[in-house]
Amino acid sequence: MKKLNTSPLSGTQELLPQTQAVFNEHKKHITETFKSYGFQNIETPIIDRDEILFAKAGGDTEKQIYRVIKTTESADDSTQALRFDHTVPLARYIAEHQSDIAFPFRVSQIGRNFRGERAQKGRFREFYQCDVDILGRNTLPIAYDAEVIATLAEALSTFDLPGLEIRISNRKLLTGLLESIAEETRAEIFSIVDHAEKVPPETTMESLNSLNLPEDIVVKITTFINIKGNSTEVSQKLDNLDIQNETFNQGKAELLAVLKLLEDQEITAAYADMLIVRGLDYYTGTVFETFMKDYHSLGSICSGGRYENLTSFYSAEKFPGVGGSIGLTRLFYVLSANGLLREQIVQPVDIAIIPISGAEQTFATNLAKKLRQKGNSTDVILTDKKLGDKLTHASRIAKSAIVVGESEKNGETPLKIKDFATGETRDLL
Amino acid sequence: MKKLNTSPLSGTQELLPQTQAVFNEHKKHITETFKSYGFQNIETPIIDRDEILFAKAGGDTEKQIYRVIKTTESADDSTQALRFDHTVPLARYIAEHQSDIAFPFRVSQIGRNFRGERAQKGRFREFYQCDVDILGRNTLPIAYDAEVIATLAEALSTFDLPGLEIRISNRKLLTGLLESIAEETRAEIFSIVDHAEKVPPETTMESLNSLNLPEDIVVKITTFINIKGNSTEVSQKLDNLDIQNETFNQGKAELLAVLKLLEDQEITAAYADMLIVRGLDYYTGTVFETFMKDYHSLGSICSGGRYENLTSFYSAEKFPGVGGSIGLTRLFYVLSANGLLREQIVQPVDIAIIPISGAEQTFATNLAKKLRQKGNSTDVILTDKKLGDKLTHASRIAKSAIVVGESEKNGETPLKIKDFATGETRDLL
Repeated sequence: MKKLNTSPLSGTQELLPQTQAVFNEHKKHITETFKSYGFQNIETPIIDRDEILFAKAGGDTEKQIYRVIKTTESADDSTQALRFDHTVPLARYIAEHQSDIAFPFRVSQIGRNFRGERAQKGRFREFYQCDVDILGRNTLPIAYDAEVIATLAEALSTFDLPGLEIRISNRKLLTGLLESIAEETRAEIFSIVDHAEKVPPETTMESLNSLNLPEDIVVKITTFINIKGNSTEVSQKLDNLDIQNETFNQGKAELLAVLKLLEDQEITAAYADMLIVRGLDYYTGTVFETFMKDYHSLGSICSGGRYENLTSFYSAEKFPGVGGSIGLTRLFYVLSANGLLREQIVQPVDIAIIPISGAEQTFATNLAKKLRQKGNSTDVILTDKKLGDKLTHASRIAKSAIVVGESEKNGETPLKIKDFATGETRDLL
Repeated sequence: MKKLNTSPLSGTQELLPQTQAVFNEHKKHITETFKSYGFQNIETPIIDRDEILFAKAGGDTEKQIYRVIKTTESADDSTQALRFDHTVPLARYIAEHQSDIAFPFRVSQIGRNFRGERAQKGRFREFYQCDVDILGRNTLPIAYDAEVIATLAEALSTFDLPGLEIRISNRKLLTGLLESIAEETRAEIFSIVDHAEKVPPETTMESLNSLNLPEDIVVKITTFINIKGNSTEVSQKLDNLDIQNETFNQGKAELLAVLKLLEDQEITAAYADMLIVRGLDYYTGTVFETFMKDYHSLGSICSGGRYENLTSFYSAEKFPGVGGSIGLTRLFYVLSANGLLREQIVQPVDIAIIPISGAEQTFATNLAKKLRQKGNSTDVILTDKKLGDKLTHASRIAKSAIVVGESEKNGETPLKIKDFATGETRDLL
């Protein structure tokens, strides 16, 4: 019989147990950080109505959505698809359960999402995202924007990332700047600024020049793009632009408030950077992206921002919110591929107990029970192989081993535990 | 604009945050139990090639598989579907990664699976399953069957289930019994015995009588079906059947070995019951199902067994294994619907800090940091509402609250924490 191709589909993550254990440890740290910051975890279904999922999608995302069909379709089935992010199902969740939720609602979601992206190294079609969002009913103070960024910064600390940079801006600044410029070129300038982060400065300059703008406008835009720094620096530089516009001033006040709150908490990785726009998304105020300094080409590993009315498709009420997401599968892949994983990949089991013969199995099983109650992950090796083979197996799965022979079982010889890393053997207390 | 239907799809689970927290606690207990028994966690992709998923499926399962299609299909895509259990992806995983795995391999999987079952109360189309399996290369001693059952029994203890019954049999007993009977009726008798658990004894009797079997055969079969008890009882009763058949004797020896190992560990919920067959599945030896005595109609909440060669479609090597699965979503639903959840549904956040005005926000945020480091899930309420409104909000999300005013901030008044359950206020130490 022809054997089937057993490799996992390209664009999916499948790890060996030792590596999976490290992935799980990081996921657990993120989960616990979100919880410690008061975020309440929810899980939305992976399958949802496509009218819900397509309501907000557009452009590339819509093309990447996986539709699902049952092998046998029944009449009551609406057309269904797999969620492509946590944000759209969250909007539906808020609209559906709003009367049971206390606002402001700190909510976290950790799970797998699906996008049929072009298969490519490091691009995933099935991937974990770890999201936090805070939603208000009608209003939500700007201080919550800093809370979301502080929470994500703490969650990311599990990776001990080299050169972490959380770059923050506010969409109202660019909107306000554009409002002070002739209307017909606004969309094009927006697009040029939105792309400026990804292209050389000369390219941005050429694009701006091709629009035949007055020179003072070009200077203003290029000066704006290059503004970055802490709250004091940025406040001064934004003032120097001398823009008289209400939206711009509001954006400035919000950005400075967020920066100051993060500076108060000594989150030194965070700074303002006007290159951050997050153009096509639904953001209306604060926007942020996170990079590793020496791995800039890897793109943002944690992004988010403020949205004024995410639930507009689903509810007549208004729920402004702020949120962000860690792309865990991609981040783990990148760190692993670059040798940057902080945690060592080790044997996932703490102790392997080796009964020499069947006569010691019950004793070994009961010993395992006691060790488990003390918090040790404990395997009992129940094969009828030779002791040497059992020890080899133990060293492949566990950090240490206890051999139980007749004299150990009868209490004539004290139990000893062997540490495979050091080779040392000591009495089991 | 017409607002969209925001209810989750029928057959999916969507919980409010307080209930989700209880679900998560149980899932965590199961996860940690599996780990403590030395099981190494893996995660396989939710999407897989349908030739893999369909290779073992058949009957109802095949009809229930969800196929996935991308909105824009690219040429390199094989036809894909959503996994319907953890067993088939595990077989593929073992075949694919066999050279990197140390056998016997204790492996756990906890995640969502998908089946397009007819929508019905308590029947889920998207559901969590928690699986443990132990696989050997070429051979796997029978003692591992007891390990799987002991692990699942301990994992289920998180629910403190009333009248838990783990009913165990061995497929070789029925196979051996049938080998001692004329061949042309074997398939029909197998089917009758397989269904005997779900129908009244009279129906089973009628079905047997309709086959025109010799009377001693009918007596033998009905006597067999009714055998249940501990290892001593069952050993005697099986001997009394007086069946001279190698397969039967092997099944008896295996069943008694498993029972004795569980009795040694004082797993009192486990007993032998010949009504357990698990007919259509791939089981070849040990089989078990788990019921709650007073909720028998709910069906088995944890089932499994021994399979000799699960990877036959994927690998030329033989990997016998034993495994079992807890249907977590369904179990949680049933317990919740019947008021049997042990854990109380409480506010998920430990402490809500309430700064009275913006001037105390930084102090409050830094206080939160300290409380989080001590393991408290801590929210800071940053709205500009009145103190009374903030306290009401705190009581809806948190177990306790700390109010920070100017004098608390300045250290003139000691910080106090109010417990909402007792109404008591005490100094924060």
